[in-house]
Amino acid sequence: MSKQLEKLKEILYEVNDINNASAVLGWDQQTHMPPMGAEARGLAQGTLDKIAHEKFTAPEVGKLLDALEKEAGSWDPDGDDARLVKVTRRFYDKNTKVPAAMVSERAELTTMGNQAWQEARSKSEFPIFEPHLEKLLDWARRFAELYAPYDHVYDPVLDEFEPGMKTADVKVIFDEIRPKQVDLIKRISEAEQVDDSFLHQHFPEKQQWDFGVEVITDFGYDWKQGNLAKTTHPFQATLGWGDHRITTRVSEDFFNPYFFGTLHEAGHAMHGQGTADRLKRTPLYNIASLAIGESQSRMWENLVGRSKPFWEHYYPKLQSIFPDQLKKVDVDTFYKGINKVAPSYIRVEADEATYNMHIMLRLELEMAMMEGEAEVRKLPMYWNELVHKYLGITPKNDKEGVLQDVHWSFGLMGYFSTYALGNLVSAQLWEVIHRDMPDIESKVRSAEFKPLLTWLNKNIHEPGAKFEPQEIVQKVTGSKINGGAYLRYLEKKYGEIYGI
Amino acid sequence: MSKQLEKLKEILYEVNDINNASAVLGWDQQTHMPPMGAEARGLAQGTLDKIAHEKFTAPEVGKLLDALEKEAGSWDPDGDDARLVKVTRRFYDKNTKVPAAMVSERAELTTMGNQAWQEARSKSEFPIFEPHLEKLLDWARRFAELYAPYDHVYDPVLDEFEPGMKTADVKVIFDEIRPKQVDLIKRISEAEQVDDSFLHQHFPEKQQWDFGVEVITDFGYDWKQGNLAKTTHPFQATLGWGDHRITTRVSEDFFNPYFFGTLHEAGHAMHGQGTADRLKRTPLYNIASLAIGESQSRMWENLVGRSKPFWEHYYPKLQSIFPDQLKKVDVDTFYKGINKVAPSYIRVEADEATYNMHIMLRLELEMAMMEGEAEVRKLPMYWNELVHKYLGITPKNDKEGVLQDVHWSFGLMGYFSTYALGNLVSAQLWEVIHRDMPDIESKVRSAEFKPLLTWLNKNIHEPGAKFEPQEIVQKVTGSKINGGAYLRYLEKKYGEIYGI
Repeated sequence: MSKQLEKLKEILYEVNDINNASAVLGWDQQTHMPPMGAEARGLAQGTLDKIAHEKFTAPEVGKLLDALEKEAGSWDPDGDDARLVKVTRRFYDKNTKVPAAMVSERAELTTMGNQAWQEARSKSEFPIFEPHLEKLLDWARRFAELYAPYDHVYDPVLDEFEPGMKTADVKVIFDEIRPKQVDLIKRISEAEQVDDSFLHQHFPEKQQWDFGVEVITDFGYDWKQGNLAKTTHPFQATLGWGDHRITTRVSEDFFNPYFFGTLHEAGHAMHGQGTADRLKRTPLYNIASLAIGESQSRMWENLVGRSKPFWEHYYPKLQSIFPDQLKKVDVDTFYKGINKVAPSYIRVEADEATYNMHIMLRLELEMAMMEGEAEVRKLPMYWNELVHKYLGITPKNDKEGVLQDVHWSFGLMGYFSTYALGNLVSAQLWEVIHRDMPDIESKVRSAEFKPLLTWLNKNIHEPGAKFEPQEIVQKVTGSKINGGAYLRYLEKKYGEIYGI
Repeated sequence: MSKQLEKLKEILYEVNDINNASAVLGWDQQTHMPPMGAEARGLAQGTLDKIAHEKFTAPEVGKLLDALEKEAGSWDPDGDDARLVKVTRRFYDKNTKVPAAMVSERAELTTMGNQAWQEARSKSEFPIFEPHLEKLLDWARRFAELYAPYDHVYDPVLDEFEPGMKTADVKVIFDEIRPKQVDLIKRISEAEQVDDSFLHQHFPEKQQWDFGVEVITDFGYDWKQGNLAKTTHPFQATLGWGDHRITTRVSEDFFNPYFFGTLHEAGHAMHGQGTADRLKRTPLYNIASLAIGESQSRMWENLVGRSKPFWEHYYPKLQSIFPDQLKKVDVDTFYKGINKVAPSYIRVEADEATYNMHIMLRLELEMAMMEGEAEVRKLPMYWNELVHKYLGITPKNDKEGVLQDVHWSFGLMGYFSTYALGNLVSAQLWEVIHRDMPDIESKVRSAEFKPLLTWLNKNIHEPGAKFEPQEIVQKVTGSKINGGAYLRYLEKKYGEIYGI
């Protein structure tokens, strides 16, 4: 290893240590921190982030990268070292591009923006949030200008979450699936509806908890590398290699939130748990992008956890845990119930058939705002029009409309599309898994998940953040990200459930 | 505020932020970290500690202190700023005195020493630990030489935990109490023994837990500034101002460990919770010394929690929680049982009458080792002789003798005496509390703890680490640390219980 590479790694190791410490602080803040600890925690977090930023953006890092990029010409371009230099360069350029003043401006805007959003949402009054969104949007547009010239003003914000992905690519993908999903939803709405009332009964927490734990243990969630805690909003957090934790919530009046939420977060965590140990302490020990990450959580939650073979195995067990609630419900009825399609206002509660529509309307609005084509003050109107156009329903108020998501209040433009892209990628991978393991369904039916996890480890988890999302999908599936597989998946699944 | 003071505080704030982050990492490591997270955690902790050390020992800090010490001549010597300069100087000199090579040497010695101690203890074979203890002792003696000339070679290691305290002072104190405690123990052993067999019954965890939580809540433990978690070894941790947590353990076969352990840790935490907010983010937001800290935990655990008035209030409640176990045990029998005196081998299980003897024998051995008067290889023999001399019993093996404590394996010389000093201070304070609040016992009898906590807040907690332990005790009680009050307390309490 060259002296320069060694020196670069030393710096990256230290930055990674600090980032891991910062992740511990964040996890604790949401799980165990007492309320009056908030002030000290905020300051500690700020100090760690500042030190990590200073160390990572030091001119020495730039010089080392310059030197290493010359050396790297003779290296294996897909090797760990070449990729480390490439990915570090990407982060270095991003972190040094934004002036310090803009960084602190953003911190202020998001603190105030999030406060205003909370008030606006609780009162269902968009005008309270509007001036803050204006400022956050202005910031995002100035941010984009730092990357000029660009093909599309939305490219720089999208690239924050999907390295190498262009707005034009996303448009093509969504333009393909939009009319077909709208049509599918329409056909479903005209078919005979399924019953899911039995999911809304009393399910005691302890039993729900143990059942979910049993299932993710069967999946291969590694408890030596993680744990499960309760929080208001479920999330997955990586606090260092070998430490990929998940959190969940429990509703005793509705079966779905705990169970599918836990499967979802476990999917994220197994992604981290499977990343190659040799990449540890560097920026490569990470997920390739949010879409790649979401493809893993969605696969375990939906393609596995909401599938017929899965419940053919687990339903008798579930019935024995909740005999009073489920004894009169057969597995077919249960399977249809957990897959019921119903246009709804709230994204996080949406079923698989309607979910992407929630994303597409957000993406359209974000792009129009970034282009300057949408006036912020008219956003609630645009929002409601799109919801009606795609889902055939109209929000009664801003709380169940434009104010439902926290993302914009944190200045997160460009984030939403990763959720839908994750769905698409999960289905693309699933088709290849079917090809590589034709008996995957019977394996799921016997709760034999090891081959699936091993496949995902090898193809997705191990390389960590070495490759860009499109590179990975191309390499593993033979095509770039596209909606074909997901549309086929939806048509087949809902064709059977709704007889359409 | 002078520019220099402002600059110094800025540095101290940042160092404090990093130390708080490090405390979060430490707490999580012992409560929630999955096993495979250990490697990343160790490295993150090491990096944070290194950065904090670098920032705190920067030459700039020394220059600021030099300048401020000149200014401080005109300041109130007991004011926050003057004390901040004084305490910072103390830590700065300590942190810059030890060469970096010795710091890393110590880290290695303690890592290996602790491993060897674990093996030695599990096999009850002192020779496995002996060569490591030799090296750790050699390190401690070289450490002491850095502070030459000293009055006594033990002074520098004692000063690490009790600022300003001298070996000569501690000797005088212990020489006073030693013969009197030995005599008391002898008289008790000749009196009629009390029964505590009812404490060794099955007490289900949930009921124990809730009862302990109720009591510390009554004490005034502030849950907005803390929480309670389960660990193998109970401890208290401060993760920032407003964040003083405690941990505990539960034995279902013995009432004492959970209940008194929880009271003990809550006593430590209330100390932190009562420290003045204006000292936050500086080295003054801390305890004055380990002995002052221990005086608080021991007061709530023993002077309150093992007192007759306390149980006159809580015993009916406890009987209602454990009717099968306690219905035939009256409050007097219960009170005597939890205060049973019995010479024993293990320090952490010792009663109030014998506890200090465990400390004194350790102190004698530590001093003799530091003086070069005790050969390490003969330590088990010395140990057993002293146990027999003070407690009239002889350990059967090294595991219940010289190998029982972890401290020496971490190179902690000078630490043990703080436990006994804490006991003495708790009784000194208790006498003043009696003078200031003659009805304190009837207040305890009605579970009215607010006046006591308010008194402790004002006299001990609020000033944090502004004053040295002897200054505080002198200021509050009118004398320096001494054994008089503790001896009076033991004589009265055990005189009644044992009719001697």
